[in-house]
Amino acid sequence: MRNVRVLLAYDGSAFFGWQRQEGFASVQQGLEEALLALTGESLRVIGAGRTDTGVHALGQVASFHTAARLPDERLLFALNAHLPRGLVARALETCPDAFHAQKSARGKRYAYLVRTETFPLPLGRGLWHWVPEALDLAAMRRAARAFVGRHDFTSLATQGSPRRSNVRCIRGLHLVARRSGFALVVEGDGFLYNMVRTLAGTLLEVGRGKRAAESVAELLAARDRRLAGPTAPPEGLYLVRVLYAEPTFRNRPAGPRGRPGLFPG
Amino acid sequence: MRNVRVLLAYDGSAFFGWQRQEGFASVQQGLEEALLALTGESLRVIGAGRTDTGVHALGQVASFHTAARLPDERLLFALNAHLPRGLVARALETCPDAFHAQKSARGKRYAYLVRTETFPLPLGRGLWHWVPEALDLAAMRRAARAFVGRHDFTSLATQGSPRRSNVRCIRGLHLVARRSGFALVVEGDGFLYNMVRTLAGTLLEVGRGKRAAESVAELLAARDRRLAGPTAPPEGLYLVRVLYAEPTFRNRPAGPRGRPGLFPG
Repeated sequence: MRNVRVLLAYDGSAFFGWQRQEGFASVQQGLEEALLALTGESLRVIGAGRTDTGVHALGQVASFHTAARLPDERLLFALNAHLPRGLVARALETCPDAFHAQKSARGKRYAYLVRTETFPLPLGRGLWHWVPEALDLAAMRRAARAFVGRHDFTSLATQGSPRRSNVRCIRGLHLVARRSGFALVVEGDGFLYNMVRTLAGTLLEVGRGKRAAESVAELLAARDRRLAGPTAPPEGLYLVRVLYAEPTFRNRPAGPRGRPGLFPG
Repeated sequence: MRNVRVLLAYDGSAFFGWQRQEGFASVQQGLEEALLALTGESLRVIGAGRTDTGVHALGQVASFHTAARLPDERLLFALNAHLPRGLVARALETCPDAFHAQKSARGKRYAYLVRTETFPLPLGRGLWHWVPEALDLAAMRRAARAFVGRHDFTSLATQGSPRRSNVRCIRGLHLVARRSGFALVVEGDGFLYNMVRTLAGTLLEVGRGKRAAESVAELLAARDRRLAGPTAPPEGLYLVRVLYAEPTFRNRPAGPRGRPGLFPG
């Protein structure tokens, strides 16, 4: 048996989230069924993060143990031949036996994409959140600073998800502006359920002038989800990268690091 | 009666091209039917360029005369309420009576988008052409130089389109490279039928090493379509901007000028 990790990209609108659930097509199921068809093994794959329905990924990581003897590169091509539409393996490599896609993760980077034209671009629907109002990006940047650092993020977490602690560390939060909109790029050691989308929804309220930039620090201190903004829709959210202590996917394909890529408009 | 020009964006996959044809949904028909519903007038709109089935537009221009008295901004919002899915009016303004979207045009700018990952990104299919092979971009840039300037472009024009002259002037042709792919951005006084797509297909052959960069000048001199590369697929092509002697659409929304926009990956 060898341990293998795989770098995944998927269209969130094609799946009911990462996690396997009876009767709903999930990313985990798509990957496990492709591996079953390929290797004959009923594997259980481990994902770094459980993305929700509608949330996209460019750099999700999964790991699994397999007896398959195909070399890494051939396994990658064969796997892609079996994956369902909307799911692609971008890279694959045999890794140390102790590597665990979820438990070994040291952090994650997400991007939340917003387009701000008065009328929505008729191309690429479902790839970003469209906000036609004029937004005060300077106020959003001021507000964003309050989220950076180690905080109890209870105010941003959807209730009903019991956890030992709601303390997380946001290492960086940047608003990357372009003429047609912007990306919120956030990196942290971990995120609570719906935390990035609620963070985005709260900053959008600041941008619209419905909430003072200076109120965000109080919001966090109150530890009350009812005080935060709405959860922004999933189609704007991308799991961009999972960070590990060891270098992963040396042949990682071109990807974003908070930088926008190749799209006009 | 007043003369009105409108800036249009559309998803090429939603229409059988610009031009009205019985039994097939076209952009022209979508615009004319929206104006009929809105004003009660059976207008004939003039488009700057006749884009083909599958070709996208971010900056198509159309003009028409109307007796409607709605101010420009209200007409723009009302028009968008009636346009079919996949077609958006980005800006609209009353213009000089002599303005003619097609005859007044002094040039056009197109972009052809290519992504070059080994495995295709499962997001935004239909928004670019995917070429998994490694391409020699330096050779493509050398070859591109031969197209710039005033030439007889018979070798790049699909036959069966009779015209007085196949001489056109390409004012600029740039390959804008990003990690995930590149855009070919071409500006000229006019383009023959399929000319940009055949130019892209020919440069892709150079990039693949199937054609020498230095052979492109001979190709043009031969005036023989059979010597050029294949016509590249329509989903990579965008009509980005139509250029006029007068300034147009002062409130033009954010758009590309050969620069990539907001998309990760």
